Amino acid sequence: MATSAEPINPSTTRLGWIGTGVMGRSMCAHLINAGYTLTVFNRTLSKAQPLVDMGARLAQTPHDLAAQSDIVFSIVGYPSDVRQVLLDPTTGALSGLRPGGILVDMTTSEPSLAVEISAAASSKSCSSIDAPVSGGDRGAKNGTLAIFAGGDEAVVDRLNPVFTLMGKVNYMGPSGKGQSAKLANQITIASTMVGLVEGIVYAHKAGLSVPAFLDAISTGAAGSKSLEFHGSRILKRDFEPGFFVNHFVKDLGICLQECQRMGLALPGLALAQQLYLSLKAHGDGNLGTQALILALERLNNVTLAS
Amino acid sequence: MATSAEPINPSTTRLGWIGTGVMGRSMCAHLINAGYTLTVFNRTLSKAQPLVDMGARLAQTPHDLAAQSDIVFSIVGYPSDVRQVLLDPTTGALSGLRPGGILVDMTTSEPSLAVEISAAASSKSCSSIDAPVSGGDRGAKNGTLAIFAGGDEAVVDRLNPVFTLMGKVNYMGPSGKGQSAKLANQITIASTMVGLVEGIVYAHKAGLSVPAFLDAISTGAAGSKSLEFHGSRILKRDFEPGFFVNHFVKDLGICLQECQRMGLALPGLALAQQLYLSLKAHGDGNLGTQALILALERLNNVTLAS
Repeated sequence: MATSAEPINPSTTRLGWIGTGVMGRSMCAHLINAGYTLTVFNRTLSKAQPLVDMGARLAQTPHDLAAQSDIVFSIVGYPSDVRQVLLDPTTGALSGLRPGGILVDMTTSEPSLAVEISAAASSKSCSSIDAPVSGGDRGAKNGTLAIFAGGDEAVVDRLNPVFTLMGKVNYMGPSGKGQSAKLANQITIASTMVGLVEGIVYAHKAGLSVPAFLDAISTGAAGSKSLEFHGSRILKRDFEPGFFVNHFVKDLGICLQECQRMGLALPGLALAQQLYLSLKAHGDGNLGTQALILALERLNNVTLAS
Repeated sequence: MATSAEPINPSTTRLGWIGTGVMGRSMCAHLINAGYTLTVFNRTLSKAQPLVDMGARLAQTPHDLAAQSDIVFSIVGYPSDVRQVLLDPTTGALSGLRPGGILVDMTTSEPSLAVEISAAASSKSCSSIDAPVSGGDRGAKNGTLAIFAGGDEAVVDRLNPVFTLMGKVNYMGPSGKGQSAKLANQITIASTMVGLVEGIVYAHKAGLSVPAFLDAISTGAAGSKSLEFHGSRILKRDFEPGFFVNHFVKDLGICLQECQRMGLALPGLALAQQLYLSLKAHGDGNLGTQALILALERLNNVTLAS
């Protein structure tokens, strides 16, 4: 790999990628298209096949992947998954990474785990960046993700050529601060979604045309990206996941856990998490986050006309 | 006045305006500048002076104002104020309006009162439109308000030349539906504001730079008009009212009352109303709605650096 002073580029830097789900797959495609040598790993190996077809190599374990990579990205499910793929003493990526290597965890995960990974990486003369993203499947596909980066700023700067392929990087501070920013982002979205679906249910119950209502508010003070992304999908009762309810419930659960740790009372977050959790009670975890309308419909024994 | 088939225009139609507060003053100025003959009334008459200086006539009561107007607009404080200025048997506008006249109430008020006013107007061969607005002081000043109109669609169409001077009209249905749409709009904004200030307080408590956080999320999935309008004001601790906490608490109270009447459970609305109400407990009713950050700060015994 190039020395730590140089920005990375396709001719000097080998990349590894752990986690080729909806998000990871699109992000990897940008790297391959930019000419990077990419090795991929996924728990269900078959899901990585489209990337192998594009020219990626396949590794059997995160350790093997790291052994042939200078920089290892990960975007997996839960913090426990992050811990396993990065820190497992025999199969984890850090165990295979050579000194000077960089771990970049893009999973939305716990700030404290990011700090722990950073310390573990340092002890092996490696670096670690937490870099969770916002923007969903569409942002991943279009390369317009917002990336919240925490860790050594010089390392984040070096990674910039790769981050730019995926979206826009925002440096938030030392290790863990990328995760904290992402969690604050989710907290903001959570109550915005509650406002959107409550406004819709009210409009319906009050006898308004919901499409006319959404059209009327879209350019005014009630406008939001949530309305822009989800308004028409809700009207069409299209609950296909851009972002899974299951993942949002996970994120909001981490938020509440962090709030508990910090002694921070956020009643809107707590309420939103409970409403999202009720979707899981109905088996709706694999729907998209716009399915929150179902929670408000059930609460009120109403259904919007489809 | 012109026959009911013609759109109104400055040479045939005399306008009256009740309520010349922050919103009303700016809206009236657009009418005067467009060449309309305008008579104004305000409970505190001195507040109407700037409009008189621009050429408006001053009336001593809503009744007197209506006697010299073809169309009477009102934008006052509470539903009880609306009732008084429009329906009072001796001093109210309807008592002075001639057959064929139109009442246009732009106050955010109760849908049921809008229906009552409409019936009272009909019984005097007059018309009534409910037309509350969204967009705050800025929208009023720039003529970019969203107007939610309820009532006879033909009458709303006739009023279009005047509404266009203030913003964009959205026809929502028969009498009261303009109010219902505005209330649904406020419900959407209420939880969006909760999300915004909770995200900010979390970011602060987690040790992030709040300006950097807001900058990072502004173009992503957490983006909203609330963030756009209020983010920088909150950072500067500028709590000057674009829209008063007192008025928002009034609006949300009407929303809850309507929910109670309809049997509709909206827990996000209820929570937001309680948080806004706590601002009144601290004497912050005359601040702008962005002061919600103070409620979350007090709840958590923190203060963002100014």
